[in-house]
Order: sequence, then structure tokens, then C-alpha cells
Amino acid sequence: MNEPTLELIREAHARIRGHIRRTPVLTSGRLDGLCGTRLFFKCENFQKTGAFKARGALNAVLSLPDSEAARGVATHSSGNHAAALAWAAGLRGIPATVVMPRTASPFKVAAVKRYGARVVFCEPTHKAREEAAQRVVAQTGATLVHPFDDPRVIAGQGTAALELLEDLPDLDAVACPVGGGGLLSGTAIVARAVRPGMRVLAGEPEGAADASLSMAAGRRSPVDKPSSIAEGLLATIGLLTFPIIRREVERIATVSDEEIRAAVRLLLEVMKIAVEPSGAVGYAAVASGRLSVSGARVGVILSGGNIDLDRAPWAR
Amino acid sequence: MNEPTLELIREAHARIRGHIRRTPVLTSGRLDGLCGTRLFFKCENFQKTGAFKARGALNAVLSLPDSEAARGVATHSSGNHAAALAWAAGLRGIPATVVMPRTASPFKVAAVKRYGARVVFCEPTHKAREEAAQRVVAQTGATLVHPFDDPRVIAGQGTAALELLEDLPDLDAVACPVGGGGLLSGTAIVARAVRPGMRVLAGEPEGAADASLSMAAGRRSPVDKPSSIAEGLLATIGLLTFPIIRREVERIATVSDEEIRAAVRLLLEVMKIAVEPSGAVGYAAVASGRLSVSGARVGVILSGGNIDLDRAPWAR
Repeated sequence: MNEPTLELIREAHARIRGHIRRTPVLTSGRLDGLCGTRLFFKCENFQKTGAFKARGALNAVLSLPDSEAARGVATHSSGNHAAALAWAAGLRGIPATVVMPRTASPFKVAAVKRYGARVVFCEPTHKAREEAAQRVVAQTGATLVHPFDDPRVIAGQGTAALELLEDLPDLDAVACPVGGGGLLSGTAIVARAVRPGMRVLAGEPEGAADASLSMAAGRRSPVDKPSSIAEGLLATIGLLTFPIIRREVERIATVSDEEIRAAVRLLLEVMKIAVEPSGAVGYAAVASGRLSVSGARVGVILSGGNIDLDRAPWAR
Repeated sequence: MNEPTLELIREAHARIRGHIRRTPVLTSGRLDGLCGTRLFFKCENFQKTGAFKARGALNAVLSLPDSEAARGVATHSSGNHAAALAWAAGLRGIPATVVMPRTASPFKVAAVKRYGARVVFCEPTHKAREEAAQRVVAQTGATLVHPFDDPRVIAGQGTAALELLEDLPDLDAVACPVGGGGLLSGTAIVARAVRPGMRVLAGEPEGAADASLSMAAGRRSPVDKPSSIAEGLLATIGLLTFPIIRREVERIATVSDEEIRAAVRLLLEVMKIAVEPSGAVGYAAVASGRLSVSGARVGVILSGGNIDLDRAPWAR
């Protein structure tokens, strides 16, 4: 697999821009005051399907040759990527199958079904999910679309930073969450190619800190039993994403679940926007002071807004 | 007191526009599908101070002659108008005093104090509030700024509809919440002057249905002990606002607290925006089917976003 380039990301943007939302960049004097810097929030919580994942999934789906596309797409991610892939497949008019653990929350299952995907339930183990996905592929010939370790997906995710830098060419830094690293690696490629001096920063949950451990160790270092309220960020950094991140990212700060909750709460109370815990982790890293950005102009990618209201992730 | 005209509302807009937010108009295919119409949400939840009240309060404050302004402003509203007046006074650099019942929620008190107003606590009765406000006026010479029954306040509130119609000149109808009627009367003046065939509609909580009762009776008909989760809409329709509303508004539909909660929840889940119960009542009236707008292009004013998260108004 090749690393995506700025050129590929521009092509991805041309491919998907007619179908995705050009999400707004919002600001808040009060939140700026709280952290002594100027923040520009790229609101991917307003993106189609409620998360930036629509970008990468759609780029992957639209990149498939017709013959391959006709057999459909599949994934065994259970979160925002699954809903995004279902949505993207619906747009192209091809079938999508999503393998989900039978313990998945009804909230997530409903999102995937709403976009018209077939859901195949399996036991809640990594092995069972992979086997079920392989069965789907064997039966249907569907193309598996990985949630992050795929150049077309990374290129799609990079388009958020492309728009951010079109709107604000003079940012000093950009911060986003990191799980598998699709958004962060795409963002890093764009930022460092368009504006070489720009600082690329990220936040990661303390309970799933494999990316920062990997940066420190210089090699991928999975965490045993990752756990966090930011359930979208539990994946291990990818084989394709890690080298990009290691080379281009200045720092990945870890944040506690308490800091993530506080960030979600501030965004909702002050900015009146719903950002899910995973989507607020880049902001949490800035707001908690764990990334040194004082005085800088910082783009902060709020990556998703699919909050399960019955769980109220800001409860103190 | 004279009724404000479109001309006065245009003057108000020129006066305040440099200080307020030009709030965005958002749409949602999913919410359109749920109610079989096209909705255009004017997001006053993103307004300065978190509600449209910033418009009217600032217009009133900026309209005062210097000598009068120097003595400050006061109010005994405890909700969004109080915070808005505090903010507006701070902008002009004049003192503001807000009389609040000692039972007011810490959430509301904090908002008013954050904008720098002096808070005077009193017993939680209407009489005690009026007396305390009169004492403030006697002691300081401050100008009382009524939350709705004031032409300058109504003119300010009308500027939201002015912007909405600048952005979308071909709307068929507009819907907003009604409490004292400042927003609704300002909206009605603009809509009917700019686009005479336009339908002006409103939603009102069942437990505080004095506006719809007043429309039916042809005279102001206060309700004894109004009560609703939409606590910003408990006021009785005004002496100045009622004649305008009676003349220009087609229909005021009442909605239950359950319908209001469902509307708040949908706006947060689907559109990822925080709208307080009072702010969602116009949408609740549309979404519940209590206003007949099928097939129409409807502007819906979401009037405020100051949700007290510790109360979670969408809980089922």
C-alpha cells in the first residue's frame, strides 16, 4: 500500500465534494479565553452521517471500478465508519454489509440500518468479527473497506484539513483525535505539504494510548484491553498510518476520560454543539493544557457528533 | 408606546449588526423527511449570550441617550433577557442590575454574573421582584428594560427574521416560539411587510397557553400558574405585542412538554445542535404536526441554546 499524497487528497476532494457537507469553522471568544489561544473548530460533527468518516468511506466507494463496486462493500467496524460506509454505498447504489458484535449498542445498529446496510451479527470477539467478515466476502465478493489502513480512506479523511486550510491559510497548528490514525495521517499529509512549518498535534485517550506509546517507542505498540469513554478511538494505530504520523506529527498528548467529558460539556454548553467523546479529544488535549499552543492560531478538528443521549457523556 | 415598523427594525439592525452574530441557517434532510416539508433553521442558539434576546437588549441599550445610559440599565427577568441585558450593558460600558429570585438556578445566576451585571436577590414572588426593581431604579436612576413590551426590544428581536428573509426571500412561512411575544411580534412585522403573503406561525407550551387563548378570545387572557419545561415562555403576552400578534399571526399551536422534549432531542441527535426547550417550541409545533405546513418552505427560528446540562431536558 502506498502513502497518499497531497495530490491524491485533492483528487479525493474533487470526487466527494458534491456529496459531503462543506462543514463550517466556528469560533468562541469564551473558549479562546479559557485556553489563552485562538481556536478554529472544524465542525465535522455536522458532516453527513455525523462524522468525518463519510469522507474516507465515500472516497473509497467512489474509487472502486464498476465491476468491483457491483458486488458491494463490507466492513466489521461497528462505529461511525460502518454508518459512513453504509451511507456511501447507498449513494452509489451498491449493497453494503456490516458485521457488528451482537453486543453493539442499539444506537449504533440503528444508525447503520438507517442508511440501508445489511447487518450481520457475530460474537463480540475480534476473531469472530474477522471470520464473519471473511464469510461475507466469500459469499458476496464484496470489497472490505478498512476504517483507516487504506490509502483511499486516508485520502478522504485528509480533505477535512484541506478545507480548513482553504478557509484559514495562516493557521499555526492543527489538532485532532487519534485512534487508528486515518484522520491524523490525512491531516498531517495536507498540513505539512500545504504549510510546511505548521505544527500537527493530536489527542488520545489515556486508556488507549497506543499511538503516543508507539511514537515514544518508534514502533507500533498495541495496548492490551484499551478502554475509554471515547469508544471510537480504541483501535490500534495502523500499519499504513503509523509511519506518516511518526514522521509528520509533533506530539500526541493523552487525556483522561474526565478531561474528555469536560470538553464535551464545554462544547455543548458554550458553543451549543453536540460533539461525541471521541470527536472532542483533540479539543480536550488543547483545553487541558496538555498541548502547548499558547498564543497560536490552532485549527481543531471536532471529528464527530453522534452522541447517545441516553448515556449523557458529560455527566459529572 | 408605538408599534415598531419595518423601518425601525432595519434601523435596529444597522445599530446592532456589528456586535451580534449573523447566525447561520441550517437544514437537515432527515428532519425534512420526518415532517414532509422543507425546514430552514435560523440558529439563534448560536447568537451572542446563547439567545436572540441579545438583539433586543442591545438595540435598547444602544438606543439610550448618553445621559440616560450613564445611569445604567436594570431588569427583573431572570432568564436569557437578563444575561443579554448584562452583555449589552457591558458592550456599552454602563452598569446593569438584574433582580433575581433567590430560588433562581445557579446556572442562570452564573450566566448573568459572567457578563458583569450586579445581581440583587429577592423573594420569589412577582411583587417582590417588581419592588426590588423599583428600589434599584430609585437608588441608581437606571432605565428598566422590559423583556418584550418595549418597541426597541421588539425591533431588535425582529432583526432575526430580517436576516432570515435576506438569506431566503422565498419562504412560505415562518414559525417561532411565543412567550411574552417579543420575538413573534418582531418576526410578524418583518415577514408581513417584506413578503405580505407569508404565513406567520408560532408554538406555545400547553401549560402556558395564554397567547393562543388570547387569540381565541380576542383579548389578553393570562393563565393562572403557568408551568412548562419551556421555562422561558411562561410570561403573559404583552400589551404592545398582543395587538400585533392578533393582527398578523395566522395560528399559535400548543405543544406538550413531551413534544418539546422530543424536539430538543431530535435537534441534538440529528442536527448536533443544543437548543433549549423554550427555543425548540416553534420546531416542536411543526414536528408534532400541530401546524399544517406540509409541502411548504418554512423558516423555523430556534431561539436559544442555554441548556442546563445537569437537567438533561431530553430525558425520556
